[in-house]
Parts: sequence; C-alpha cells; structure tokens
Amino acid sequence: MDAIANAIAAVPHVRLLDREMDASHNRCVITFVGDRASVAEGALAGARKAVELIDMNAHRGEHPRIGALDVCPFVPVAGVTMDDCVAIARTVGKRIADELGVPVYLYEAAATRPDRKDLPNIRKGEYEGLKRAIGTDPDRRPDFGPARMHPTAGATVVGARPILIAWNVNLATTDVRVAKRIAKAIRESDGGLPAVRAKGFELADRGLVQVSMNMIDYHKTSPLRVFEEIRRLADAEGVAVAESEIVGLVPLDPLIEAATAYFKLATFQRNQILETRLWE
Amino acid sequence: MDAIANAIAAVPHVRLLDREMDASHNRCVITFVGDRASVAEGALAGARKAVELIDMNAHRGEHPRIGALDVCPFVPVAGVTMDDCVAIARTVGKRIADELGVPVYLYEAAATRPDRKDLPNIRKGEYEGLKRAIGTDPDRRPDFGPARMHPTAGATVVGARPILIAWNVNLATTDVRVAKRIAKAIRESDGGLPAVRAKGFELADRGLVQVSMNMIDYHKTSPLRVFEEIRRLADAEGVAVAESEIVGLVPLDPLIEAATAYFKLATFQRNQILETRLWE
Repeated sequence: MDAIANAIAAVPHVRLLDREMDASHNRCVITFVGDRASVAEGALAGARKAVELIDMNAHRGEHPRIGALDVCPFVPVAGVTMDDCVAIARTVGKRIADELGVPVYLYEAAATRPDRKDLPNIRKGEYEGLKRAIGTDPDRRPDFGPARMHPTAGATVVGARPILIAWNVNLATTDVRVAKRIAKAIRESDGGLPAVRAKGFELADRGLVQVSMNMIDYHKTSPLRVFEEIRRLADAEGVAVAESEIVGLVPLDPLIEAATAYFKLATFQRNQILETRLWE
Repeated sequence: MDAIANAIAAVPHVRLLDREMDASHNRCVITFVGDRASVAEGALAGARKAVELIDMNAHRGEHPRIGALDVCPFVPVAGVTMDDCVAIARTVGKRIADELGVPVYLYEAAATRPDRKDLPNIRKGEYEGLKRAIGTDPDRRPDFGPARMHPTAGATVVGARPILIAWNVNLATTDVRVAKRIAKAIRESDGGLPAVRAKGFELADRGLVQVSMNMIDYHKTSPLRVFEEIRRLADAEGVAVAESEIVGLVPLDPLIEAATAYFKLATFQRNQILETRLWE
C-alpha cells in the first residue's frame, strides 16, 4: 500500500488527501487531487504499481472485488465538469488496458451501456466468477483490452461519478425495525429519495439504532432534505434523532445549506465566506 | 476612493477583497489581504493616498471620524496571531506618523492604555473636537507623531482586532419595542453576552423589526449562541424569528458550528470539509 501511495504522490501536481485501509475488507482506498492531466498520470502510476504487486489468486477479503486496482472513479471537484471526468476516465481506462494488459470496464457516468452504470453489476461473481465469464459471455466483454483476465491483476473498473457523502443518523431507540423502516422509506431503490442509499443497523453497545447512508449525488438530494425526512419519519414513530456523523470528507455546500437553514438566512452567498475569498 | 484602492492593490501580494461606500456616512471601507509585510505596505500606500487627497476641513458625514484615514485595523485571518497583528499595527502606526506627519492613536489589542481600547473614546469630539484637545489635554496625546493635527488629514487610529461579524436578525412583529428589549438583553454594554453589540430597529416597509448586531469577537460569543438566545427571548414574547442576514464577510467556523448543531453532528472536524484540503 505504501508503494502504491508513494507512486501516486511522486507524480508532479498530485496531492494525496486521504488513505484508508480496512483489514477485514483487505482493501485500501486512496484519495488524491490534481489538475486533469496530473490525476490521470497519478491514477496510471497507482494502477501500474498495484498490477505489479497484488496477486488476485491469493487475495481474500469481505468486500467484493475483481482486480488489483479494483475501481478507479474520477470525481469533479472544482473547475471541471462531469464530462471532463468522463473523458479522463476513458483515456485512463484505455491506457490501463493498452499499457498494463488489464481488461477495463467503464462505469457510472462513463458507462457505455446501461447495465454497466452500477458497479455491483460489473463486479457480479467477483474476481473468481468474472475470470470464468469474461471470455465466454458477450455481455461481460470489457470496454478496453483483452477478453481475458490479467493473470495476477484481474480486471479493473474505471469511471466518473459525483462525490459521495457517507453519513449515519442515529436514533434514540433500541428497536432496529425503526431504522430499517426509515431506511426503506428514504432509499431510492424502494421508491424514496433520488441518489440515496440507506440501510438500518443496530448499535447494540450504544443503545441506539442507525440509518446508514451513502448519498451518491447530493445535488439530487441534499443532506438537509434527507435529515428533515428522517426527522419527520422518526417523529411519526415517536423516536428522537440522537446524533449524526459524517464519515470522511464532505463538500462545503451541504454544510452551507444547513447553516442557512439554521440561521434562517434570507440571502447568503458562498462567496461571503472569508476563506473562499482567500482561496479562490 | 478609486485612487486609494488602486494604490493599495498596486502593492505586490496584496489582494483587495471588498470595498463599500456609504453616501450618508461619506465613508469608504476597503478590505484587503496579504502576508505580514504586504498588508503593512498596502496600508501605508492607502494612508499616503488618503492623506494626499482628503481635506478634513471640508469633510461632512454622519459617521464619527477624526481623519482622512480614519481607522486601520489589522485582523488575523490565517497563519498569524493577534500578537503578530499588534506588531504590524505598531510598525505601521509609527511609519504613518514619521513619514506622513499624521498623529496616530493605537486601539483595541494594540492599545497602550486602557482608555484607548475602545474606538469611540479615541474619536470623542471627532475631527473638530480633537483638533482643539490634542495639544492641550495630556490624555489625548497621540501614541506616535506630533501632538497636533495634520493640517488637512487630521489624525489616524491604527490597531488590531478579531474579525467582526455584522449580522441582523429580523422578528415577525411590528412592535419595535420587542427588538429594543431583546437588543438590550443581549448586548455586552447592558450586561448581556460578551463581545456583542446590538440595537433594535423598525423595518417599517417590511412589517418586521430588527435586532442589528456587531459581533466583535465570535470566539467569545458565537452566532449560534446569540441566535439561540434571541430565539429564546422572542419565544418568551410570543414572537417568531422571521429571518436573519449576514452583512458582508463571515468566517467559516461559525457556519460549521451552525451546521453541526443542525445535523446534531457528534464529531466533526473542519478538515473533513473537502475544500479545506484543497486550499490548505
């Protein structure tokens, strides 16, 4: 993992922001920023090192995966559009296939077919299952590279998507069914709010239950909207919202939206925040 | 005003952030940022141009004033302490006296005596009154420069202070006495919250009343604390908070505090905001 992170960080104008390792997942997430050309080079440098070092034939972990570099999403942050990120994803995907001999699937905004928009579809059967299907099932031919797995590095998914907000809201009850009902009511897959994924969990050691969410496009449904909906549903069950927690990074805009609601600000512009003037 | 702003902006590494002109005050506020040395040079360049162009003998305006450059506060924003700003204020104050022949008073954190901490004390009698007192009253001798007014530019106040938040909270009533009572209850000068200045006004054309505030040190009393107090007092009078408005710039931290309260975030760090990582 050190070798991969160092290879990425060695690319000029790339800055590592975050790195998380989960032992039971046996999986590392590395986050970095840069201009268009630099993030592309950084992703390739990381891919090259991962392909060199990781042997999928010996890999075990709880999280679904198909390759040494399992998935590489490009996320627009500032001064770029989603279309820019799609273009970067396709360029990098082609180079991973051409230069490293790894088959590449394009996903989310970069997908070339509707059934490849969702990552779980591409990962179906994981490394072991895809190894059998890639050469025989026409629906599982990669977008770039050979229709056979790399002998040690497997396959890779590359794409473009909005920034994801991982957010948990904890409710003051020990009845996990409340969290599960609310999660079902708000998640898109059951007819709830757009771009919201949610599950209900028990936090037994804390005497709380949790609505755990991935908000995959906060422009479609904001944290403020979700929070108000959860509070309304919890109220209706006679349960209070105890607290919430943002896991990892969050963009500034959803926080401004919440502060604006709290203070009932009639007109507030992001550029009234001193720091945005210093940093622009 | 253009000439003064241009003189400041011409100093390398200085960036103008904001400029406000009020006709009835006959007064211009120019805000700029830079490193220690650059803001000092910017302030001197602005002072030099103001002294050259403004004749106090012909100046009229509603806002209290004692000189062409009336007051120059240095405000710590990032990577500097209040002590750094005090040092800059004293250096710049001495140079304004030595190079431009204008008497200089130090105020707020840079004050050399307790009675000069508050700006209104130094401005007592305004330009016309100070002109008579400066040479005769020992308590009104300047910190730097001659004990006589500059013949056209008067005197100048230089100092260091925290960033000020100008903030109005509007209440859903036409009874201005409610706003005046709440303003009296929260302002420091009547035993209320530290570092809060407040007045009650009528917004007759809108059918609302306003608690208008200057929060002179949000580290001592935050907007969140004030907002909760105003809401509590308004509730007790049976009046709702209609809206609020931040005038001009606000630092990020008070907004994070409000978003944290709104979402009941159990643990949230400023460096979880994506933009702070990009800009650090």
